Amino acid sequence: MQLGHRPKLSGNLLCKVVSIMQIDTKITNQTHTFTTMASEPKFLEKGNLSGFLQSYDTFMLDCDGTLWEVDHITAIPGIDKAINMLNGLGKRILFVTNNSVHSNLNYKLKFQNFGFDAPEDHIFGVAYATAVYLKDIAKIDGLIYLVGSPGMASEFSKAGIDYFGFGADPDKASWDPKDLLEMEFRPNVKAVVVGYDEHFHYNKIYKAASYLQDPECMYVASNDVEISFPLAPGRMQPVTGTLVKTVSTAARKEPIVVGKPHPLFLDCVMKKHPEIVKERTVFIGDSLKADIGFANNVGIDSAFVLTGTHNLDHMNSGEFPKPTYVMKSLADILDI
Amino acid sequence: MQLGHRPKLSGNLLCKVVSIMQIDTKITNQTHTFTTMASEPKFLEKGNLSGFLQSYDTFMLDCDGTLWEVDHITAIPGIDKAINMLNGLGKRILFVTNNSVHSNLNYKLKFQNFGFDAPEDHIFGVAYATAVYLKDIAKIDGLIYLVGSPGMASEFSKAGIDYFGFGADPDKASWDPKDLLEMEFRPNVKAVVVGYDEHFHYNKIYKAASYLQDPECMYVASNDVEISFPLAPGRMQPVTGTLVKTVSTAARKEPIVVGKPHPLFLDCVMKKHPEIVKERTVFIGDSLKADIGFANNVGIDSAFVLTGTHNLDHMNSGEFPKPTYVMKSLADILDI
Repeated sequence: MQLGHRPKLSGNLLCKVVSIMQIDTKITNQTHTFTTMASEPKFLEKGNLSGFLQSYDTFMLDCDGTLWEVDHITAIPGIDKAINMLNGLGKRILFVTNNSVHSNLNYKLKFQNFGFDAPEDHIFGVAYATAVYLKDIAKIDGLIYLVGSPGMASEFSKAGIDYFGFGADPDKASWDPKDLLEMEFRPNVKAVVVGYDEHFHYNKIYKAASYLQDPECMYVASNDVEISFPLAPGRMQPVTGTLVKTVSTAARKEPIVVGKPHPLFLDCVMKKHPEIVKERTVFIGDSLKADIGFANNVGIDSAFVLTGTHNLDHMNSGEFPKPTYVMKSLADILDI
Repeated sequence: MQLGHRPKLSGNLLCKVVSIMQIDTKITNQTHTFTTMASEPKFLEKGNLSGFLQSYDTFMLDCDGTLWEVDHITAIPGIDKAINMLNGLGKRILFVTNNSVHSNLNYKLKFQNFGFDAPEDHIFGVAYATAVYLKDIAKIDGLIYLVGSPGMASEFSKAGIDYFGFGADPDKASWDPKDLLEMEFRPNVKAVVVGYDEHFHYNKIYKAASYLQDPECMYVASNDVEISFPLAPGRMQPVTGTLVKTVSTAARKEPIVVGKPHPLFLDCVMKKHPEIVKERTVFIGDSLKADIGFANNVGIDSAFVLTGTHNLDHMNSGEFPKPTYVMKSLADILDI
């Protein structure tokens, strides 16, 4: 799930891009050193696309706002052909998304719906990545209290993780401390994991905060930078970041976070793909905070696309991490 | 509801108090001016109790941790007699509590249970105070979305406030934006009010954050400093502050807060008791943050009691507002 404004794509966009980039360069010339100027984002177009494609073997792609619009439904023209072209060039494509609602299998089916395909082990929904973290990195041996999505439950089951708490909380709501103290708590809970949960409820906050009073109980969040999402005018959907903030507040603890922009996501990907060479890897995404921030945090190159969360004004505001490249859409690679 | 540690009351407490106060005074002598020294808390004991009682006409008393222990159940010895003594001296006693679970009538019955009584219009549960704020100060004319407690619903009804949302949310939980967009939203919601709500649920966060996208819709919280409360070892009860933080995060807005330590609570009290003279009023409570902070914020004297949330180490840590006076328990006034 992604935040923020959907950019208005128009025929004049390229002109606008070039014009803003020029202004930017001018300012840069006046006030910055050559090194800073060299790190300003390069706009990808016909002349430099071939070099761009040759520079990388691994293309990590964000999903919402990059492969389809942030409404999760509307196709972005040409994305199917672009993915198929990268496949044809023999590139390793990895799909890396903070959306924790879906399992990797769901993503595979969604990709097919949009006209391209991917092997399941090339898909890293944060639900799956969180399972990889718990199983292969933290190596948690024991019970996990999950405040999470169907996708997380599905990936946890597939990984053989012993979890409970998924779905509506079974206990009756009560403000009475006596009732709260009588609710069932399982012994030896080794971790509390928080992701997107449409059944998020007072009882779950109480239970998560309570388990976390045990200093041996680990606190893991699938992702945290996505706070709430404007679904429509006057409709603001809370997403994982809000739920994580709630549990952190009540428990007075901060979680280990798997999702972008946290570097842990790359550890999870490389656990399954140790063959990846960071210098030959580029991350392509629409969120300056999550995607470009992630690339910068782990030290890989990045390309910022204007089909989702952020636009050029955001990029030039100085408030967000700077990408290596900018392009209107991932489909621009077809212009080669 | 109150936070934190319950002080260990013991026979040695007075010695400890005097000893800490002495150390404190010594440090003060060395490093502070006379004005600061004069503002160090005075310990109330036999010698100065009579002057203390003569200095004030209005005694504002916190409830949880001041009239009974923070578990809401255990009596503090002598409190009934102390209240009855203040009544006998013709003092105006006002009960001012951030606990939003109960209505004023509930408090009256609870007082009777503990052996004292109060006219209902001398009780200011924050549920009632919030109703006073909405009706008599903000003068909200229209519908209110309430994420709150039975006490708030009861006080709102009594005040003739037009509210909805109380109790379990009626809509089916769903992660699907399509379902979220189909949920019923009422037009012309003039305010979202958040308090303690044991039915707090994802759908309520979504609805509150959505109504708050209207810049004309006011955002009010009953209280915010009480975050979570250790009910028992390994049992951490989230309270109003956690729920308010959640809605604020999703809505990206900050509320107007009625509860202590915010000065608005005094405006609500004085709306009903305009006869109060601040110079002749003292606030007595166990929370340095909520009670003593409130007294300092509104410019009235305060007495800190050691029967609840905070202890002398907290008081001397420099991290909390300083009271005018300290006493072991409100019941100490019986030593006169």
